[in-house]
Amino acid sequence: MQRRTFIKKSSLTALGISMLGATPSAAGVNHFRVNGQRIGSRIVELAKFGRDENGHGYRVAYTKGDIEGRAWFKGQMESAGLDTTIDQAGNIIGKRKGKNPSLKPISFGSHIDMVPDGGNYDGTLGSISALEVIEVLNENKFVTDHPLEVIIFANEEGGTIGSKGMTGQLTKEGLGQISQSGLTMADGMKAIGGDPDNIANAVRQKGDIRAFIELHIEQGGILENENLQIGVVEGIVGIVHWEVTIEGFANHAGTTPMNLRQDALLASSKLIIAVNEVINSVKGNHVGTIGKIAVWPGAYNVIPGKVTLGLEIRDLSSEKIEMLYSEIQKRGSAIAADSKTKINFVRQANASLPALTSKALQQTIHASAKALGLSTKFMQSGAGHDSQEMAFIAPVAMIFVPSVGGISHSPKEFTKAEDMTNGANVLLHTILALDQE
Amino acid sequence: MQRRTFIKKSSLTALGISMLGATPSAAGVNHFRVNGQRIGSRIVELAKFGRDENGHGYRVAYTKGDIEGRAWFKGQMESAGLDTTIDQAGNIIGKRKGKNPSLKPISFGSHIDMVPDGGNYDGTLGSISALEVIEVLNENKFVTDHPLEVIIFANEEGGTIGSKGMTGQLTKEGLGQISQSGLTMADGMKAIGGDPDNIANAVRQKGDIRAFIELHIEQGGILENENLQIGVVEGIVGIVHWEVTIEGFANHAGTTPMNLRQDALLASSKLIIAVNEVINSVKGNHVGTIGKIAVWPGAYNVIPGKVTLGLEIRDLSSEKIEMLYSEIQKRGSAIAADSKTKINFVRQANASLPALTSKALQQTIHASAKALGLSTKFMQSGAGHDSQEMAFIAPVAMIFVPSVGGISHSPKEFTKAEDMTNGANVLLHTILALDQE
Repeated sequence: MQRRTFIKKSSLTALGISMLGATPSAAGVNHFRVNGQRIGSRIVELAKFGRDENGHGYRVAYTKGDIEGRAWFKGQMESAGLDTTIDQAGNIIGKRKGKNPSLKPISFGSHIDMVPDGGNYDGTLGSISALEVIEVLNENKFVTDHPLEVIIFANEEGGTIGSKGMTGQLTKEGLGQISQSGLTMADGMKAIGGDPDNIANAVRQKGDIRAFIELHIEQGGILENENLQIGVVEGIVGIVHWEVTIEGFANHAGTTPMNLRQDALLASSKLIIAVNEVINSVKGNHVGTIGKIAVWPGAYNVIPGKVTLGLEIRDLSSEKIEMLYSEIQKRGSAIAADSKTKINFVRQANASLPALTSKALQQTIHASAKALGLSTKFMQSGAGHDSQEMAFIAPVAMIFVPSVGGISHSPKEFTKAEDMTNGANVLLHTILALDQE
Repeated sequence: MQRRTFIKKSSLTALGISMLGATPSAAGVNHFRVNGQRIGSRIVELAKFGRDENGHGYRVAYTKGDIEGRAWFKGQMESAGLDTTIDQAGNIIGKRKGKNPSLKPISFGSHIDMVPDGGNYDGTLGSISALEVIEVLNENKFVTDHPLEVIIFANEEGGTIGSKGMTGQLTKEGLGQISQSGLTMADGMKAIGGDPDNIANAVRQKGDIRAFIELHIEQGGILENENLQIGVVEGIVGIVHWEVTIEGFANHAGTTPMNLRQDALLASSKLIIAVNEVINSVKGNHVGTIGKIAVWPGAYNVIPGKVTLGLEIRDLSSEKIEMLYSEIQKRGSAIAADSKTKINFVRQANASLPALTSKALQQTIHASAKALGLSTKFMQSGAGHDSQEMAFIAPVAMIFVPSVGGISHSPKEFTKAEDMTNGANVLLHTILALDQE
């Protein structure tokens, strides 16, 4: 066993880690394993911050719970020997030196803020597991060639604000937007130790980081449904929204015979079904949803004159999104003609582009999982993540673990201890493999 | 010509009408015709009350416009020699004596209140035409055998409140309800000269009235569509409302694959189409409408977890309404099973029963129209009217005239002068025929 034969570096001597030994062989790190119990304890510990009297989590970015949770987490990072700072965007960055200071750092982490009444695994698992990787390296007195960085992004749930800041995507207008906390993004950053007036100093350039790797709960039910352990994320989907307006003619529901109606809600119902049919008619992992509907005038005794719908399509390929939309438009035109209504689609300004992960890193994750005896699935992330912003400046990778019932953004969000441990081990070994490439 | 050979009665002497002559033969009244120009002028005159600066009508019951319009109308009735009073429910009643005081009065009229931003024909045409019948009789110095009564009902649009008061259907609770004016029904009645504390004195008993006849615009597009002039109303439909709740499971629209969804809005869309199919699958004049929809949580990126719909069915037959509902329920159960949702129907308390008009009066209207050379259609009223309340205490009849474009409860509501004249002539001759039966 070669556990203790590492190179000594000054900053690690306090932890009793020598960096003067020989680099261990691949076989030397293969037996490294995370401590699942420690991960579980930290999940429980972090869940206490921002929790209300009913036990529900409100660790919304920039609020008291977030501030206190971050302070606790930063303390844990420091205790693990990380050189920890807060950047201008409010991201917590913990650095661990590598043997070769000329190499770019391998970065990993996630976020610890949550949606209101959210769950205890979204972001949290990836953050705690990143810290766990450091703990395991420390316990094994192992120093990587590359410098390592644990990054805990600020305000992921409010629009990946911290990672946007780190990748130079925050505008003055964006900083002025009101966050869920009630503060502007800028004031929120100040509340967590950031410095929005000098946000440009937070920006990392393309090539500054060797890779960014994020472990996350799936937030969907695919892995559980297929009884698989590890998701190798191929990319984070692009998202496009359209507001759809269906105009018929509002009229008296008692005096207008069925054949003289121009019922906007009936036409809308046909369109909602058509959207579902178009989405299901094409093979792939794309999704299409009508999540919003409003009707005018909206009374029992008036035939609906106008309806608005919210249409969303997500896929890894922008071309596919456009192809599906075009097919939906065609169906909409036919429905409009048939029902004597007008149907109009207006693309919303908030589209996000698909972000592909590194093919090489996907293979590294896959190989690490296989070496650990875990089953895998190559899949897309249907939700947005900080990784999609980091993809602007670095190769990124994501590791998914199952979410029980596919539930997320809910107090019912849950991932089994065994799955968390599996995910953290894959994160650890992906980093180690990448370090030794 | 036997125009001037009538019996003289004291109350009519002021108008120069003798009631001492012989009763004219049927042929003697056959040439009586309403003055279409006078009807049109009064439509224009009445429309000025309650009109806003943009020319839109807000003669909502109990408001300033209603109060002023009623005062003008009561003055017109008095000028026409009617002995005019306001009953406890606020209805304006104008009496004209008949030759035979032992006969029960023939009553006719409608209402002059309107919905907010309403039209100038709904209720108004029937009211002005009732007054026109009196004008024609006066001009022809003709006295009927039966006493006549012009009734202008109060607050028809707020729930046939005046006619409910006259037929003993107003409860203390009903009087306490807030009307569209902001006043309670009771305070509203006071504002228009009623006496809600003694509402029982407004009640007419079954048999007190020979018949109640109401001319009204169709408020639908059937007559116009079929190019017909007069609708002979067979009855006023019953109306039943159900609140329908569709429960699925709200989930992340990005991370939940299409095959794992329980989308309450998709299931609702299938139900809305099923309602339309069930209604259209059965022959008849019944109508079924989904006019309301709400979705939870209602965001682009969340699969709808819950939807509520408002279902309304109207028909002349309660049995048919129940049959259609039962069929819709069956379709709902199949959709629920297929879409993994729960669908629940809750019948609302405000159902109104169908009110059939008198078969004999239908024939009288039909014959009067034919004698005038007008085309007719036996049809139902899909909208509620004061006649449906009057049906509790008297034989009722309704005469419909075309609504341009089937539009009602809108500033666009319009009925052509010729159609108004036709309707008023049919009203006149129906009353004359009934009088001479």
